Amino acid sequence: MRTTAGWQSLDPTTNALTRVTFERRDLRPDDIAVRIDYCGVCHSDLHRIHGMLGEKDLVPGHEATGVVVGTGQAVTGFAEGDRVAIGTIIDSCGACAMCLAGQENYCYQRPTTTYGGTDRIDGTQTKGAYSREYVLREKFAFHLPDGLDPAAAAPLMCAGVSVWEPLRATGVGPGARVAVAGLGGLGHLAVKLATALGAEVTVLSRSTAKERDAWRLGATGLLVTTDEAQVAAARGRFDLILDTISADHELSPLIGMLDLDGTLCVLGNPLLAGPKLWELGAGRKRLTSSGTGGRRRAAEMLRFCAEHGITADVEILPSSEIETALNRLAAGDVHYRFVLDMSDLDTEATAPDGFAGRPIHPAH
Amino acid sequence: MRTTAGWQSLDPTTNALTRVTFERRDLRPDDIAVRIDYCGVCHSDLHRIHGMLGEKDLVPGHEATGVVVGTGQAVTGFAEGDRVAIGTIIDSCGACAMCLAGQENYCYQRPTTTYGGTDRIDGTQTKGAYSREYVLREKFAFHLPDGLDPAAAAPLMCAGVSVWEPLRATGVGPGARVAVAGLGGLGHLAVKLATALGAEVTVLSRSTAKERDAWRLGATGLLVTTDEAQVAAARGRFDLILDTISADHELSPLIGMLDLDGTLCVLGNPLLAGPKLWELGAGRKRLTSSGTGGRRRAAEMLRFCAEHGITADVEILPSSEIETALNRLAAGDVHYRFVLDMSDLDTEATAPDGFAGRPIHPAH
Repeated sequence: MRTTAGWQSLDPTTNALTRVTFERRDLRPDDIAVRIDYCGVCHSDLHRIHGMLGEKDLVPGHEATGVVVGTGQAVTGFAEGDRVAIGTIIDSCGACAMCLAGQENYCYQRPTTTYGGTDRIDGTQTKGAYSREYVLREKFAFHLPDGLDPAAAAPLMCAGVSVWEPLRATGVGPGARVAVAGLGGLGHLAVKLATALGAEVTVLSRSTAKERDAWRLGATGLLVTTDEAQVAAARGRFDLILDTISADHELSPLIGMLDLDGTLCVLGNPLLAGPKLWELGAGRKRLTSSGTGGRRRAAEMLRFCAEHGITADVEILPSSEIETALNRLAAGDVHYRFVLDMSDLDTEATAPDGFAGRPIHPAH
Repeated sequence: MRTTAGWQSLDPTTNALTRVTFERRDLRPDDIAVRIDYCGVCHSDLHRIHGMLGEKDLVPGHEATGVVVGTGQAVTGFAEGDRVAIGTIIDSCGACAMCLAGQENYCYQRPTTTYGGTDRIDGTQTKGAYSREYVLREKFAFHLPDGLDPAAAAPLMCAGVSVWEPLRATGVGPGARVAVAGLGGLGHLAVKLATALGAEVTVLSRSTAKERDAWRLGATGLLVTTDEAQVAAARGRFDLILDTISADHELSPLIGMLDLDGTLCVLGNPLLAGPKLWELGAGRKRLTSSGTGGRRRAAEMLRFCAEHGITADVEILPSSEIETALNRLAAGDVHYRFVLDMSDLDTEATAPDGFAGRPIHPAH
């Protein structure tokens, strides 16, 4: 077995994680070992740490980049030293209709998630990329294209592919009128990606505070959703609205801004309830949602980002400052994604008592 | 003014309508007068008679066929003697984005409905086609193609176009896997139209009672939705499910039978609430609805039906038996659409006291 260090949630009532050392499996023939250099902090990490999915003792982290440091004997696609990106899933059945369609994220046998999942061979719980080393099947790792900064590219692997999939599934291209509601981790990448696809992009926000950012990211404008006159004037204006708002909110104003056969894709809050059907019927609106992405689209997105020079806007923190990152994320104080630098896990003495190998609680 | 006879709801607690005579407007330059020969009985008539939309004193009826008996001086598209079909709307603003797109049914200024609407010129309430004569702008009347039986074609104008629009909006064609939930007025036409478009059609029903009918209408099979094993085996099977069930029901089993990017279009019950978004997210399913159709699609549908010999399966009753029709419709005892023969309104003495010109209550 291989020993590594990481950050684990041992108390669902706090954002303080605990430094732990734990074992990764010995490499199976098709495994690679990856030194994790950077891992993005996803809003879902926050929810899952707090028990949203009924999990406990998680080592979170599912959007990471790093370098190959070991390869199983049957590995053909990676060599030591290769730059790697890891996303939200690390295995699937490989045989169902969804897997065969390249949508392993919807595997009928459930995909194995990067953390909090169950390994398909040994049945252990998967531990995520808030850690210095990760081991996974090469099939589910991605080559990180040249030219993409590894820290700023990490959030592409969850936030990026989560908005890329609906943009592609709805055929967004030149001339498409796209709105992005909520300008956070997902939202700011949605603006960049949709713009690069040729769409005319509008940011929907509760105030004008992010107007300058919206322009900088490529949007042609910002519409203030608390201004009823602006919302009314935008009736029927959009072909696609990507709703990345994580807070509870009303869908009706967004539906009203869709054109005939337009699509509202709700990504930020999967617990929202859909509207009454007549709201969709008045103009044949489509309501949908989606969950991260499959291998095919993730690889496509990385190529597209490399071509167009797209990465996330990130604030990099040493991994020991994860609690700060989570607290600020919960407070909406992030522009636009925290990325943890995992190199501080190499130092054994990061905590007062300096004893690696047993849980050490970071200073508050 | 022109005097005609019809059937009016004067008591929302009963399906018994009252025979009345009332006036139609004198023909405006672009008006035609139509002798209504047949009018279908729509499920929404039943609901609206009972006050679903807060209306009262309705003369219902919005899927009708007849013959032109008068033309305004500027009419160019119709001549006396022409066969005509009338649908659910008879006017719209003509200038908004929806009208310009041929979707007058979604007119931003609200379309004028065939009954219970407000005339855009004189402000009077529109009275429907449960009557012997109707007056409307020629723009909103349709030529009834040769070869279509006028009684069996009447339901095409609401039930038919209501299922035609989502079939066309979702691009159903050869190879599409379509399911139709509920085999009533809308459902049986959905099976016929989707089959003629080249789709492989499955009927979803609570029992096998309608299996023979499903085959006869063109479906390749019937799936019993109360059989959990059948539903589970159909996971991901359909590209489009047209839900024409008017009763309250769960959408989740239907969503589960959609393939990736598949669409559930709820037509039968617009008051249903949408599911939680994660249900749609698990496989990127689309939820939608729609409301009747615009002029462009209605004309297209009539041409298509004429080409393919498609009309509704109807049971024709004299208009004086409207109460029976409504009662049996409410009880689900209809195969698959009641059509009223309006010729009995020519006889003044249809009721015991034989006095036309004042309301006469039909015998119970």
